[in-house]
Amino acid sequence: MPAEAAIPTATDLRTPVTPQGRALLDLLDGHLEEIRAGAEENDRAAAFPFDTFESFRKDGVLAATVPAELGGLGVSRLYDVAVALRAVAAADASTALALHVQFSRGLTLAYEWRHGTDRAGVLAERLLRLMAAGEAAVCGGVKDHFSTATTLTPDGSGGWRLSGRKMLVSMAPIATHFVVHAQLRDGEPEQDGRQPLVSVPVLSRDTPGLSVLDSWDGLGMRASGTFDVAFDDCPVATEDLLLAGAEDTRDDAVLAGQTVSSIGMLGIYAGVAQAARDIAVGRIARRSADPSGATSTLVAETEARLYALQATAGAALANADLVSADLDVDPGARGRRMMVPFQCAKMTVNQLALDIVNDCLTLVGGAAYSAADPLSRLYRDVRAGWFMQPYTYPDGVDFLSGQALGLDRNNDYVSGRIGRPSDGG
Amino acid sequence: MPAEAAIPTATDLRTPVTPQGRALLDLLDGHLEEIRAGAEENDRAAAFPFDTFESFRKDGVLAATVPAELGGLGVSRLYDVAVALRAVAAADASTALALHVQFSRGLTLAYEWRHGTDRAGVLAERLLRLMAAGEAAVCGGVKDHFSTATTLTPDGSGGWRLSGRKMLVSMAPIATHFVVHAQLRDGEPEQDGRQPLVSVPVLSRDTPGLSVLDSWDGLGMRASGTFDVAFDDCPVATEDLLLAGAEDTRDDAVLAGQTVSSIGMLGIYAGVAQAARDIAVGRIARRSADPSGATSTLVAETEARLYALQATAGAALANADLVSADLDVDPGARGRRMMVPFQCAKMTVNQLALDIVNDCLTLVGGAAYSAADPLSRLYRDVRAGWFMQPYTYPDGVDFLSGQALGLDRNNDYVSGRIGRPSDGG
Amino acid sequence: MPAEAAIPTATDLRTPVTPQGRALLDLLDGHLEEIRAGAEENDRAAAFPFDTFESFRKDGVLAATVPAELGGLGVSRLYDVAVALRAVAAADASTALALHVQFSRGLTLAYEWRHGTDRAGVLAERLLRLMAAGEAAVCGGVKDHFSTATTLTPDGSGGWRLSGRKMLVSMAPIATHFVVHAQLRDGEPEQDGRQPLVSVPVLSRDTPGLSVLDSWDGLGMRASGTFDVAFDDCPVATEDLLLAGAEDTRDDAVLAGQTVSSIGMLGIYAGVAQAARDIAVGRIARRSADPSGATSTLVAETEARLYALQATAGAALANADLVSADLDVDPGARGRRMMVPFQCAKMTVNQLALDIVNDCLTLVGGAAYSAADPLSRLYRDVRAGWFMQPYTYPDGVDFLSGQALGLDRNNDYVSGRIGRPSDGG
Amino acid sequence: MPAEAAIPTATDLRTPVTPQGRALLDLLDGHLEEIRAGAEENDRAAAFPFDTFESFRKDGVLAATVPAELGGLGVSRLYDVAVALRAVAAADASTALALHVQFSRGLTLAYEWRHGTDRAGVLAERLLRLMAAGEAAVCGGVKDHFSTATTLTPDGSGGWRLSGRKMLVSMAPIATHFVVHAQLRDGEPEQDGRQPLVSVPVLSRDTPGLSVLDSWDGLGMRASGTFDVAFDDCPVATEDLLLAGAEDTRDDAVLAGQTVSSIGMLGIYAGVAQAARDIAVGRIARRSADPSGATSTLVAETEARLYALQATAGAALANADLVSADLDVDPGARGRRMMVPFQCAKMTVNQLALDIVNDCLTLVGGAAYSAADPLSRLYRDVRAGWFMQPYTYPDGVDFLSGQALGLDRNNDYVSGRIGRPSDGG
Repeated sequence: MPAEAAIPTATDLRTPVTPQGRALLDLLDGHLEEIRAGAEENDRAAAFPFDTFESFRKDGVLAATVPAELGGLGVSRLYDVAVALRAVAAADASTALALHVQFSRGLTLAYEWRHGTDRAGVLAERLLRLMAAGEAAVCGGVKDHFSTATTLTPDGSGGWRLSGRKMLVSMAPIATHFVVHAQLRDGEPEQDGRQPLVSVPVLSRDTPGLSVLDSWDGLGMRASGTFDVAFDDCPVATEDLLLAGAEDTRDDAVLAGQTVSSIGMLGIYAGVAQAARDIAVGRIARRSADPSGATSTLVAETEARLYALQATAGAALANADLVSADLDVDPGARGRRMMVPFQCAKMTVNQLALDIVNDCLTLVGGAAYSAADPLSRLYRDVRAGWFMQPYTYPDGVDFLSGQALGLDRNNDYVSGRIGRPSDGG
Repeated sequence: MPAEAAIPTATDLRTPVTPQGRALLDLLDGHLEEIRAGAEENDRAAAFPFDTFESFRKDGVLAATVPAELGGLGVSRLYDVAVALRAVAAADASTALALHVQFSRGLTLAYEWRHGTDRAGVLAERLLRLMAAGEAAVCGGVKDHFSTATTLTPDGSGGWRLSGRKMLVSMAPIATHFVVHAQLRDGEPEQDGRQPLVSVPVLSRDTPGLSVLDSWDGLGMRASGTFDVAFDDCPVATEDLLLAGAEDTRDDAVLAGQTVSSIGMLGIYAGVAQAARDIAVGRIARRSADPSGATSTLVAETEARLYALQATAGAALANADLVSADLDVDPGARGRRMMVPFQCAKMTVNQLALDIVNDCLTLVGGAAYSAADPLSRLYRDVRAGWFMQPYTYPDGVDFLSGQALGLDRNNDYVSGRIGRPSDGG
Repeated sequence: MPAEAAIPTATDLRTPVTPQGRALLDLLDGHLEEIRAGAEENDRAAAFPFDTFESFRKDGVLAATVPAELGGLGVSRLYDVAVALRAVAAADASTALALHVQFSRGLTLAYEWRHGTDRAGVLAERLLRLMAAGEAAVCGGVKDHFSTATTLTPDGSGGWRLSGRKMLVSMAPIATHFVVHAQLRDGEPEQDGRQPLVSVPVLSRDTPGLSVLDSWDGLGMRASGTFDVAFDDCPVATEDLLLAGAEDTRDDAVLAGQTVSSIGMLGIYAGVAQAARDIAVGRIARRSADPSGATSTLVAETEARLYALQATAGAALANADLVSADLDVDPGARGRRMMVPFQCAKMTVNQLALDIVNDCLTLVGGAAYSAADPLSRLYRDVRAGWFMQPYTYPDGVDFLSGQALGLDRNNDYVSGRIGRPSDGG
Repeated sequence: MPAEAAIPTATDLRTPVTPQGRALLDLLDGHLEEIRAGAEENDRAAAFPFDTFESFRKDGVLAATVPAELGGLGVSRLYDVAVALRAVAAADASTALALHVQFSRGLTLAYEWRHGTDRAGVLAERLLRLMAAGEAAVCGGVKDHFSTATTLTPDGSGGWRLSGRKMLVSMAPIATHFVVHAQLRDGEPEQDGRQPLVSVPVLSRDTPGLSVLDSWDGLGMRASGTFDVAFDDCPVATEDLLLAGAEDTRDDAVLAGQTVSSIGMLGIYAGVAQAARDIAVGRIARRSADPSGATSTLVAETEARLYALQATAGAALANADLVSADLDVDPGARGRRMMVPFQCAKMTVNQLALDIVNDCLTLVGGAAYSAADPLSRLYRDVRAGWFMQPYTYPDGVDFLSGQALGLDRNNDYVSGRIGRPSDGG
């Protein structure tokens, strides 16, 4: 029986650092076998695991990051969120990707509840209480479909209208609400060079004009329910705006929230890499007591890479928790101190996870090339990491080199995105 | 002015975790400019930095890891040792390599003082008090010269005689004592298949028959005073044996001590990588506000790799401190729980440090190819990491793959080494 | 409009070196658009492109490597075969993989016709004339299913019986004949240590007991018709044995035939890499006149890698043609002089093709992650190269290191394989 | 005895493709042992191998690329030049780098003699006849010292004056003539945006005001005599101008000459890689019949990489010979068709040669880290390839990505360089 790669420190991404994180991991433990068992079939059919999420709802998993004061489990550390997602992803990465949406939303709404404007606080509390009650699954919509820019305009009677289309909205099949980034157009003619204002309306799924499009047919992450959502002149009340008309000031302060929204996903790719490693090492260990030269080398490299992946992700997550808690520093500096390590870790995790999965296919041999082999699913799932927000690899290169060299660039992924229709990538 | 790569967590290898570690770093801070200034000339001449070490002696740096109860600074955490060595290595890697010898010896002797046999405890205390008083610089000798096996034999009147030759003894130019691994031969004829017993005599530099050979002419680490030491029928008293005649039982318990002896060196290569990065990024930042495409890419990759290097080394060091402190577990398991993460980190650090230095040469361009450019020294120094004990890359592959696959192998670097003359590698 | 990566030499894998090779490329040219158009749908459904192969049959493509004297097109150079497969694979890799089977069989049967035993010559001529007439598609079966060893035994009345099961038989849906490697058991009790004899019966598809199992469900190469073929006590006449009872003499002479059988596949992965490059560079070129830093770097690296891939494959193919033509040298040396460069090239092509496809996904961005994007198919198809006969990566490492170090090893992939049931890889 | 990596095709960089190339290789063969024997000492002392070059002079090696009609050996193929340099570099890379200067000059002057202006033809013939007679060693000066731009101005009486300083002039210790790229300033006030004209004067070593500065102290290539040459108001006659006042028209036609000048250097790094491989494989083969897992893997990877390196360099060299011979095409297209494959090959050769040398150090172990070990010299020498003209890695990335994407850029390394003082890189 091969040993687990032993990483017994606080940065092993296995051991939660708070009791709430431990409670969440224990809750999830009861679901993992079922998640693993359904992974292949859901992947093949691109079917969302409704049953799993119904169990999550009943067990309070979907309320994990809702503050305890509002009835949730009170997991507040990004590190613990990543530990939980790692465990789920080792069973099925698609499930973890969808679950990340709800976890991430709990954290950002809790921030609004504690530190946001009055209106945002009221709105956030309402959503969080619904999440705690098992009555809300809240998706985010950031990336515009290439065909359009999503726009919020006044309706002339004190309310608003939202039109446009968002892509890559994971967990959409069970979503009850959507938190949408949109350009606010006030009806005045556009002045030359003026950036559109940023607004963030929240829409419930039954809003007239809102349609969830079962559009997902990915190379991997096929069971994550990552759909498009279209908005055709949807009515929005002012009290449903989390943010209304912030100017794009190139303020790196926004990097903090973007880190919180996305850094937990590092746990997903740690889980994918761990699963691949466990499958490959397990099969090799059963095969022979005298592995070939290349087998020994690839196993050792896999152990070292998995250790480095987890240590690097763990360091960035621990850092984000530390910096996030410190609200007394300059908001721009705080944003950069969270995003720089996150992006360093993201580049590292993406590359190492891909290398690990790839070497595990080589270790196992031709059997891994069957569509029914879990390694062939991991080979497809792992590649998603490179396309996850906030930065693609080219954007990450621009960001990190700009930071290192002291260049003045607009690092705001969201305001950059909403200002121009996507190139489809 | 380019920003420092920001890694503000406990795993950044910059911030000591104990007050003693902080005190050591502050002490060293006063020496760094001088160390940096002398690096090129010492490297060129392969000259040991006697003045620096005399300053270290006076300031108590050479007593840093001696327990406070015995008059030292009381630095006891491997993490803090690595933080200190990282700072020194960023100024001059050779100096850090020599200093590591003394730091490492303080830690292992302190262990003997606290947990060893009575005799070992007395001997360790004597050496540690001399170190605290600035009267001892204690080298280790592990690797046999390819020409011979170093052997301890009874002298017939209750004492012992040591003969042989050790290679790669760093800090040798100022050594006052040598802790030597030797085969104990008791005069009985060798029985078939019996492993030689392991013994560890300590010799003072003025022992008759002991000669320090100014033999070092390395590709890099040229100022580290890494010499051979020859023993020609040197007398050794029984009270000067730290260990006398342990059987080679393939006991993984020894992996703990070997981790403590060597893991601090990870800090050295972190320092080398950091120095290369700072030089390259600094020059690029002064050159242009519009870096070329390859320049942006290499800068970003360097930032990400340096982050991963430091996070991975930091995790393995923190783990070693944690596991090392727990003496209640099975000694073999304790050894493996220290060595596995160390070797994962060593493979990662070696590869990333080499990649970083190499890319920094590319970033700077032809000017870096001058022997007078610090980058050309870093290019040579960084390659030493691959040859450092306890495992070379091939040995590390055997160890890590054996652990992962549950294979039964002798992992003891030292007993393996002393049983056969080295292949020169 | 981006320029094609210009490689105007004989090693560019684009320009055939014989008129017959040119004629084949011209023939194929008329099919490429249709092949490209059907690739996505066939991949999704794992459907064999029957129509394409029917067109190939009518046009004489399936007789390309049949000697002109026997009515074929007379393509005899491995280099030209690879050029043709490269063009097809750039449109659809699965189609090229299946087509390779027929091309490869033409070459090896032509060798038997010219240089084989009398019986083998007669049998080969019969099959080649059928191929020339468009009446035969001849598959090979080498790799045993893990459940069994395929065995040929005397039927007691001068004929033979074949039982067992072969895996990974590409082009099986339209196969008319199967050339099968089997162990010959003569009914005598096995003596200790004796290797089974090797035999190669040829069976027509309608042989009683033969069944083609529609078992293929691969990660990629899904339209290649790569099925299992089972043999249940199939009758075989002696005149249908290409080889009957050769001893396994560890003779490296067999490496020549194995090189001829497989080296053409290098063209397939060159085509996959070229297709990925053309898609990615084409999209980037349309996107912007000012590519980002990482984009420039990845484009340049892709150009360099594709050049190296094609030059390396081209050199190994040209070498194989050269050495193959020289029958006056020691057969073992001839085998090694073909296989060593082939394996060097295979390791290089596999790695570079994977790197190129992967970087092309990064260049294109998230759009490439859609199952409908050709890049997502290329990402799955390219990985097949690592599992292609004759050697997997670990086997290739053993072979090349053994050759370099002068170690005595059994390099015969086939006899090694048939002696033991496969590990499924 | 380990086998040589067998690459028996025209692209193995071992077999010249013309009788003249064969004659040169045979001539060199008699010198290799002496070159190899002196390599370490010359490297250590940064001493130019005067004796070797005196032997080269006597034997006609220094006239190898002078046309036979003018008394030379008549080697005209870049491929054959690279084969010769590969053999020399495997013995000592510094010697090969210096020798390359003379070989390269013979080829470019022969082109001027055949296709240049009348004045250039006369000047070229004079120099070539001197080279054939063993009376001329002709260096080039392209890269300006960072302190100045080298400038040619009218002297008021029909002649010219040259002032400035060139760096990285290899073979300078024995140079009799220098071919210098300079800006021509005609005394008119500079108009905004006008590019300086390019001129190429040839100066003999005894020109008043010319000084050869023994300035070289490189990380590697230390015996190559790569000096600075300073010009202090040196008189130049009009008949000594190879080129006088060409406008910088961004004409890619110049890429042809720049390819001819530099592509032969690919042979140098092939030789370095081959030498490292032969040392490492030779030592491993003597050590053990049962190499460790990592050893097998690194040996096999080294074989594959060396094959790919040589095949890729060979393809680019063969292509350059082919395209160079065709003067009927558009000169810009001809230049690009030579430079694109050259740069693809250069990026590949640089990376693979570095990887090979690095893995060979790992294979050999700590003994390779001694300054006296040839591997430690190869580790330093191999890094020079990245800084060789015409493009550094970042420039190569710009060039190749610009070509692939159809961007309009100035690709002329020389006119780009002489227009601005170098950044020292």
